Parts: sequence; structure tokens; C-alpha cells
Amino acid sequence: MPPDALRRLAHRRSFLRLAAGAAGGVGLAATARATGAVGPLEVPQWSRTPGAPVASPAYGQPSLFERLGRRPRTPPHFPGAASTGTPLQHLHGIITPNGLHFERHHAGVPAIEPDRHRLAIHGLVERPLVLTLNDLLRMPAVSRIHFLECSGNTPWLGAKPSWTLQESHGLLSCSEWTGVELSTLLDEVGVKPGAAWILAEGADASGMSRSLPLDLARDGAILAYAQNGERLRPEQGYPLRLFVPGVEGNLSVKWLRRLKVGDQPFQTREETAKYTDLMPDGTARQFTFVMEAKSVITTPSGGERLGEPGFREIRGLAWTGRGRIARVEVSTDGGARWQAATLEGPVLPRCLTRFRLPWRWEGGPAQLLSRATDETGYVQPDRAALVAVRGTQSFYHNNATFGWQVAADGGVSHAG
Amino acid sequence: MPPDALRRLAHRRSFLRLAAGAAGGVGLAATARATGAVGPLEVPQWSRTPGAPVASPAYGQPSLFERLGRRPRTPPHFPGAASTGTPLQHLHGIITPNGLHFERHHAGVPAIEPDRHRLAIHGLVERPLVLTLNDLLRMPAVSRIHFLECSGNTPWLGAKPSWTLQESHGLLSCSEWTGVELSTLLDEVGVKPGAAWILAEGADASGMSRSLPLDLARDGAILAYAQNGERLRPEQGYPLRLFVPGVEGNLSVKWLRRLKVGDQPFQTREETAKYTDLMPDGTARQFTFVMEAKSVITTPSGGERLGEPGFREIRGLAWTGRGRIARVEVSTDGGARWQAATLEGPVLPRCLTRFRLPWRWEGGPAQLLSRATDETGYVQPDRAALVAVRGTQSFYHNNATFGWQVAADGGVSHAG
Repeated sequence: MPPDALRRLAHRRSFLRLAAGAAGGVGLAATARATGAVGPLEVPQWSRTPGAPVASPAYGQPSLFERLGRRPRTPPHFPGAASTGTPLQHLHGIITPNGLHFERHHAGVPAIEPDRHRLAIHGLVERPLVLTLNDLLRMPAVSRIHFLECSGNTPWLGAKPSWTLQESHGLLSCSEWTGVELSTLLDEVGVKPGAAWILAEGADASGMSRSLPLDLARDGAILAYAQNGERLRPEQGYPLRLFVPGVEGNLSVKWLRRLKVGDQPFQTREETAKYTDLMPDGTARQFTFVMEAKSVITTPSGGERLGEPGFREIRGLAWTGRGRIARVEVSTDGGARWQAATLEGPVLPRCLTRFRLPWRWEGGPAQLLSRATDETGYVQPDRAALVAVRGTQSFYHNNATFGWQVAADGGVSHAG
Repeated sequence: MPPDALRRLAHRRSFLRLAAGAAGGVGLAATARATGAVGPLEVPQWSRTPGAPVASPAYGQPSLFERLGRRPRTPPHFPGAASTGTPLQHLHGIITPNGLHFERHHAGVPAIEPDRHRLAIHGLVERPLVLTLNDLLRMPAVSRIHFLECSGNTPWLGAKPSWTLQESHGLLSCSEWTGVELSTLLDEVGVKPGAAWILAEGADASGMSRSLPLDLARDGAILAYAQNGERLRPEQGYPLRLFVPGVEGNLSVKWLRRLKVGDQPFQTREETAKYTDLMPDGTARQFTFVMEAKSVITTPSGGERLGEPGFREIRGLAWTGRGRIARVEVSTDGGARWQAATLEGPVLPRCLTRFRLPWRWEGGPAQLLSRATDETGYVQPDRAALVAVRGTQSFYHNNATFGWQVAADGGVSHAG
């Protein structure tokens, strides 16, 4: 805890004694028996008999007492053409376990045989190549921790008080990605003069494809084959995906089979019919790559019900596609006053950053908000400021501040 | 790649053209058909029909083409009293997926009901407490990425040429750990004058317990309830473990139920009968906490067989309990010459650090070694230097340099 936060709590002697629900002090045996809790003098069954053997299964699973899962955002039009969100309200730190990384597919998850899969690179290059996975595994690798966010995360319209964080912000995850830098491969094949854009195409049945500018391709993009230590999961592009840090998730084309270098954008359907926004003046806002600074409070959040008043920690996540998060401020009164939150280090570029603020809930209503500033000085806007520029016909890139209303009875819902 | 490494390879025009096994160039269709690979003009079945739906299952699993698992080190004397190793030779980056984190249990994995579990803290404290999980979840939290290594990782005696990395170094993993700093709880209960040691006791049937000095307890130890974002796995101490960074893994007592503050070490069986080493002069080397600087090459490693000669990257892991890794050197000739490897950032304290060195295997024999230096200036010793001080009756804390012999036929085995 930062010294100033400790000072703010200085007249309160203890985190736990103020938490009326906490089992403070000893002499708890009677309460324990009444609630089914293990009392200080009781030896529970699990301490009396040996537990389960090791390595069963060899690839481990979560506790049966934890039942986290991804959930479809909306009913899919077609099996496999949908998205599922990460249950961020139940997660800690910055790493998303691979089993809970959000999904967005356009034609389901293909079952690609890795030994038969190839990556072709052609177009405006000196030496077109077709690569195997083993070729890529031998090349110089990098590993970096980055967030991935769908540009459609947090709908522009239709906000519901009942939203959980999984529903409002769940198309956001963060992993350590390993693979070959795209710039290494571009140097290998030799980019011809005039080259300016690259088409990336997936091997799924939708042939999902996007154009990315050459500058962006050379700014840390990775031909990724591993995620959080192990090979990619099928729903994350196994055996190979493009990973482009800091920009809308759809550029990180999964099941990557082809890269074509050209002199202009390829204008695929994913950049005309989708992933482009209609502005109030009737123009199209196209190739809106960067994910601008954004933050959200994860604890407490929608659907939660606070118990007894007392100390608790406000926690959240902040991120920006423009480098590092510089500052996060938190308000508990709907934006009238703001306090600086503590950022958990290391604060990495184009990565989730965890923030925390000590808070004592007095039992009355409160409106919680967070606001991120990145190292370029960009400040996360509120919704009114965002709508003033982009109107209400937008679908993508809603990075507005996001409020949780705490009711007097402790119920938490989305408002503001 | 660092500029100097690129310079070393400067007279070689390409990573891939030198890899005779690489599918360089176009016109590959005939080869593709012969090998079952997908040719440039072929549209594979998985690109023609929609794939599997999203969120099935809601908690995802690895690809069926990847069959990594933990394996028991030695046949257990008793079900559940054994260890299983992480398959480090198949992993990338620094994060270990939770499903592959190594295990070491003394009486199996207890099935603890989280709502009934309690943590008691007593002894030389002003205000003894019994805490629920919910109490801890409300307190100020931290999240940090740290390695965890069993002090019995890498046996002193009985090295086998056939060792895989999972067998020689698999009791090593690395995760983002989240929980309450032990120092926060110690401040909460008020440590009495004279207090110097803390007993940590697990709720498993073995009542696994260790003593740790108060200074160590205040040096970043965490009452951890989450690992890589999600709640602890059962085999990692669900619902609560002590996590003490930088020291031998057994101090990070799983299924933590009790902390007792005292004025001297508690001399549990785990610090008399175990986790203590017999020195050549007959004395006992006891309370050997810190894991000293160590490194190992993960690619190529034991059991692998290199294919055709050509470019490949030597990769490995380095770690130290004394802060950050400062330097890793790699030798390909058994230690005659050493080259500086590139460290993948961020280089975090008491965390795995990934290192890399470009290498061209010429097809002849080679002996690969790595040597880590930490920020205190401590240099990883070779085995002879370690044995000169500690003798051969030791069992724990073997951090010697570790060699892989590449035979002329490309086979890789442990030697030196």
C-alpha cells in the first residue's frame, strides 16, 4: 500500500476489525460450529486422510469449487460465429489463463493438423516463401506480455444496469505471446520498393483477412505459436496466429496461412462491411487500429453484492495501445473527486496494468469510476466526450469511462 | 536479435536458406503432395467447412495435437507422496500454464471446502486472528511474477545421459501470484518483541510445516489465493498457500491453515529429517533457504534429435533468488569459449528470465552449456566447484551448470 493510502486509513486501526463480517479474534469455535466452518480446535476430514495422488490428470484442471467459464456474448447466428467473454470480475493480476481467454470466430474453430499447415508469404517481396511450423520454431523468437481486446468490446448502445464485467468488457484478455517477429520474416523475404500494406489471411472457413500497414507490421507484430508458455489453444489460432500488439483484436489473424505484401490496403470485407464506423458527418472511420487508453473497475463490479460495510480494496485494469499506462484515477462519488490509484508493477507497454485503491464502504450509495491516462498524455474520455466526436452510430472502439453504482443495500449495477 | 548477434550471422544471408530442411521458395506443390502437407494451391478441408462452435468447453483445453503432461519423478512410495515435473523442454517464454505447474506433495492433494477453510495466526502476536478466505480477499492485494523451484530439483547424484529437461530440472515453474502480503497481516496482528520466526502449517494430512525467519516473511512473502489470474489449483494449495519468493519451494506451504509466531525455529521434521544437507565435515547445513543463481538450456535439450544442420536458436531459462539475472553466457564447446546470450525483458526479480543465442549447427558434435550471473555478482558454479564445497552427500540445492552433448548424428543427451 502506498504511504498516502495508509495515512488515509490511519485513524482506522485495522483492515479486519472494521470488517464486521470478518472472523476477528479467537474463541470462534461456537460460531464455527454454527456455520459449518472449521473451528480452531477441530481437525477437518481433509487433514486426517491422505488426499488425491499427483498428476491426475497429467494436465491439471481448476478446483471443482471454481466454476469459471467463457460465455457467448449474444446467441450466435451460426454455430461458431460468435464471441465469448473472459470473466474478468473473478480474475486477479494481469495474466488470463488460456482456458478463459475470450473468443471471437467468424466460422468456428478449425481443426488444423500442424504438420500439414503452411504459411505463405508473397506479393511485393524478393524471395517468396512457404514455411512449416518447424521452420518458424528454429527462427529467432521473442516473448512478450500484451493485452488483446476486440474492438467491439463494450457496446456503444444498449447498456444495461444488469451487465456483469464479463458482459461489458469480457472481450479483453492478456497473455505472454511467443513467436517470430514479423519484421524478422520481412527481412528474410526482402520487401520490394513501394510495399506499404500486408494482407493477413486465416485458414478458417471464413478466410478471415485484414490489411495492416507495413509500419504497424514492423512495430512488434509476432508470428505467434505459443501463449502463456504452451502452444496456442485451438480457439486462439492453433498452430499459428498473427499477433499485433496494441491494436484491435481482429488484426491478430488466427490460423494464419498467408501474408501478401502490397502497395495499398486490400479492402477486405472485414474493413468495409465490418470494423469500420459511420461518423456523424456521414464519412467512414476506417482502419481504426489503435486501442486507446481505457480502464474499468473489476472489484466491486456488476452483479456483486457487498456484504457488511467496512474496508475493501477497489481493484481494476487499465490498458492502452500507445505504450504504458501512466496514471489511473478512481472516483467513488461519480466523478466529483478523484484519487490516484496504485499501479501494480511492472507496468509494461501494451499490456494490462492492475490498479488498486483502499476504500471503506460506509454502507450508503456510491458511484465508482476509473479514468486512465497513458504515457502519451492521452486521457480516457467520458461517454459524453466520446459521443460528441463519434456520434451514436459507431459500433467499435468504445473506450469511455465506465461506472458501477453501489446501492445502499450493497447491490452493484452499471450506471454512468 | 541484438546487433552483435546479427553481425555474427552477417556473412550468412538467411536463417531459412541455411536450414536445409526448410521449405524455402515456391513451387512446392509436388513436395507438399508427397508429404501430406498442404500445397500452395490446395484448399484443405478445415478451410472449406465451418469449425467447432465457441465455448465448448467453457473452460478451454489444449489442442489434441499437443499432449503435454506432468510426470512423476520417481515411483511414489505412497499414492500422493511424490513429485511431478513440468515439461520445460516444450514450453516457451517464462509463464508456466497452471495445468503444467510442477507438484510436490507429502500426503496427496486434499479436497478443502473453501467456505469452511480458516487461517489462524497466533503465538507472539498482540491480536491473534482466525481469517476466512473472504477476509483475505478484501484486504490489500499484490500480484507478482515469481519462479518456484523445489530444492530437490536436479539430483546431486545419479545423472543419466538419457535425462530430459523434465527429469533434470522439471521441479521449476513460474507464475503470477496474487494475494495479501504476509507483512500486511503481521502489521494487522502486531508482532510482539522477541518474535523472530514463523511456523507455517498446511491443512493436508501430513500437516506439512516449515519455519521461516521474520525477515524473510516480510521480504515479499504472499498469502496467495490466485495463480496466473485464476484461483489456485487444488495441487497448488487451494484455497490458500504461502508463497515465499526466491527460496526453496517447500517454504511456500500449501493449503495454509496456521501461522505461529515464535522466538526461534520450530525444528519441524521438514528441517531435521529433510531439507537439510550433510556437509563433508559432518555438520548439517540447515535452513538453506535461498535458491542461488542457476540456468539451463531448454532448446536443444535431452531426448531431442536435431534434423539437418543449419540455423537454430539456443534458448534457455535463468533464475536467482537474490534479485535479477544480470547476465547469461552460453558455450557450444564445453566451456572453452563463452558468448553473451540475449535476455528477454522484462527481467524481473526472483523470476525466470528467458535467454537466447543464435547458433548454426554445423552437423558435428557440440557441447552446450549455460552460466548465469545475478545482480549481486554471484556466478553459477560448475559441478566441480559445487562439490568441492558441499561434497557428495548433499541432496538439495544443486545449482551447477548443466551440459547437453550434441552427437554427430544430432542426438542430444546430458553430459557435463
